[in-house]
Amino acid sequence: MKFEVTILGNNSAFPAQGRFPSAQIVNYNEELFLVDCGEGTQIRMSQFAIKRSRIQHIFISHLHGDHVYGLPGLINSYHHFARNTALHIYGPVGIRQMMETVLRLSNSMIDFELIFHEIQSETKLKILENKDLRVYAFPISHRIPTYGFLFQERNTTINIDKDAIQKYHLTIDQIKTAKEGKPVTLTSGEYLTNNILTLPSRAPRSYAYCSDTMFDKRIVQWVENVTVLYHEATFLHELEQKAIESMHSTALQAGMIAHMANAGQLLLGHFSSRYDDLSVFVQEAKEIFNAVQIAEEGHTYPIEDVHN
Amino acid sequence: MKFEVTILGNNSAFPAQGRFPSAQIVNYNEELFLVDCGEGTQIRMSQFAIKRSRIQHIFISHLHGDHVYGLPGLINSYHHFARNTALHIYGPVGIRQMMETVLRLSNSMIDFELIFHEIQSETKLKILENKDLRVYAFPISHRIPTYGFLFQERNTTINIDKDAIQKYHLTIDQIKTAKEGKPVTLTSGEYLTNNILTLPSRAPRSYAYCSDTMFDKRIVQWVENVTVLYHEATFLHELEQKAIESMHSTALQAGMIAHMANAGQLLLGHFSSRYDDLSVFVQEAKEIFNAVQIAEEGHTYPIEDVHN
Repeated sequence: MKFEVTILGNNSAFPAQGRFPSAQIVNYNEELFLVDCGEGTQIRMSQFAIKRSRIQHIFISHLHGDHVYGLPGLINSYHHFARNTALHIYGPVGIRQMMETVLRLSNSMIDFELIFHEIQSETKLKILENKDLRVYAFPISHRIPTYGFLFQERNTTINIDKDAIQKYHLTIDQIKTAKEGKPVTLTSGEYLTNNILTLPSRAPRSYAYCSDTMFDKRIVQWVENVTVLYHEATFLHELEQKAIESMHSTALQAGMIAHMANAGQLLLGHFSSRYDDLSVFVQEAKEIFNAVQIAEEGHTYPIEDVHN
Repeated sequence: MKFEVTILGNNSAFPAQGRFPSAQIVNYNEELFLVDCGEGTQIRMSQFAIKRSRIQHIFISHLHGDHVYGLPGLINSYHHFARNTALHIYGPVGIRQMMETVLRLSNSMIDFELIFHEIQSETKLKILENKDLRVYAFPISHRIPTYGFLFQERNTTINIDKDAIQKYHLTIDQIKTAKEGKPVTLTSGEYLTNNILTLPSRAPRSYAYCSDTMFDKRIVQWVENVTVLYHEATFLHELEQKAIESMHSTALQAGMIAHMANAGQLLLGHFSSRYDDLSVFVQEAKEIFNAVQIAEEGHTYPIEDVHN
C-alpha cells in the first residue's frame, strides 16, 4: 500500500530562496492529506501535479501565516473547480473564525460542506480514523497553540506464502480464509495455523509531522518508533539561542528527538531564509542520528523502514 | 520622470497556466505603489526583484480572493524585514476587518503603523495626493463593491531649452528662475517670458486600472484621455454571455472602453484560466482599438503617449 509524503514548502516565515512556506501532502493509497497550507500551496500543487480533488482532510498545525495563509485561496479554488464533497479542516481553535471571516468578507460562495474540527488538547488525541489510518494530534511547543500530527497505519495486509499454496494445494476458498488471518483445515483433515500459510507481517508504518516547535522531550512519547519523523530545524545549532527565543529547533535538536524516539528516518524542514545551502543541516543532525534527509520541495519520500 | 507599471499577476480567479492572480506595481520616480495583491504576490516580487521597501501605499480594488489573499502574508513579511514606516492600505469597506482578523488570529506582531483607508464612493474620489501624483478611486461594476484607480501625474517638469541658455548667456540663477516657470530679465534689461526659455511641456501622464468590471460606460468619463488604460478582459467575446453573468468584460469590450475614453494605450489582463494562448485577446481588441497589448507577467510597460 502506497504511503509517502511530498514536500510542497519547506521554508520558514515567508517564501524566500525559491522556497515556499510549509505545506506537504501525505499520500496513503492515493487518498491525499494536506498538512499545513502556507501561501502559494495551490501554486505548488499545480507545479508538482498534485491531484487536489483527492484531498478530503486538511491538517493545520498552527495559525501563523506561513502555515495557513494559503488556505482561503485553496478553498476558493475548490469552489471554482465545482467541488461537491465535504472538506474537513483540522486545526487549533481560531481556524474556523479566520476562514469564515475571510470567506464571508470576500463574498466567497462555497457550494460544498466545510467542516471544521478545532483541536484543544494537552496530550495525544485521535482526530481521524478510517479503514487504513488513524491520525492523531499532539501538542508541541511554539509561541501559539501548535499541534504535531501522527499518521499511523491501522492494519497491514496479510500476505499469503506462495510456497505454502503450492505445498498444501490450497483452494481459492482456503486462500481467502488464510488471508482473513484464520487457520485452514485441509480435506486430508490436517489443521494448519495461519502463520504456516502467511508471511510474517511487517509492522504498521507511521509518519509524524512536528512543526513548529522548540526542542520538547514530551514529543518523544507520542512519536515513539515512528517510521519517518518530519521535525522542524529552523536554525543550525550555532543559533541555538535564537531558536530558544523564537521557540524553534536546531538541526541537532531535531536529531536528538529522532534518536530518543527511535525513529526510522528523520526529515528536516522549516528552514530559516538565511540559509541557502541546506546540506549543512544534514551534517549537523547526523552527529546524533544517521538516517536523516532534507525535506526538499517537489520530492516524495516513501514512509518505510530503511532497515527492511 | 520614470512612470511605469510592472505586471506581477494577470490571471483571474486562481493561479493557473503558470500565471498568478492580480497584482501590479506602479513605479513613479522609484516610489512604488502596489495595486491588488492576489495570493503569491510576494513570491512574484522576489522573482521580479521588486524593492518592496519602497511601497508605502497599497490599493485593493475589491475583496475577492484573487485580488487580496496575498496581503496578509506581505504584511507579515514586512514585519520580518523589520519595516518601521507606515503602510497605507486603500480598499473597499471590509478590508480592515479582513486584515485585522487574520493578523490577530495568527498572532502577527506588526511593529509598523498599518493605516486603512476604506473607500465608499459613487463617483471619482481623490484618495491620495503627493508632490508628484494624484490618485483617484472610481466605482466599477462587479459582483461586490469594486473600485478602479487612476494615477494622474500632477505637474510635468519644466525643461530649459539649451539653445536659449546659449543664446541669452543665462546665469545659473536665471536658469533656476526659468525652471520655476518664471520670466527672466537679462542684465541688458531685456524681458524674456518663460516660454522663450523652456521647451513645450508635455501633457501630464496618467495610468488607470480597471479590474474587475463588466462593460460599464460610466468608466469612460473617469479615465478620459488616460495615457495607459489597464482594463480587464476575462473572456473573449464569444463568451459575452458568461462575461455578463459573472460581471466581467470581454477583450472587445475593453477595446470599446479604451476607444470611447480616447486612451493612449490599452493593456489587457485578468484572463480566464481556460485560455492558454493570450494573443487572441489582442487580435479581438484591435478590431476596435489599435494600441493594445497583453499585460504580461514580469513585463514593465512605460506610461507614455505612443504618439510622441
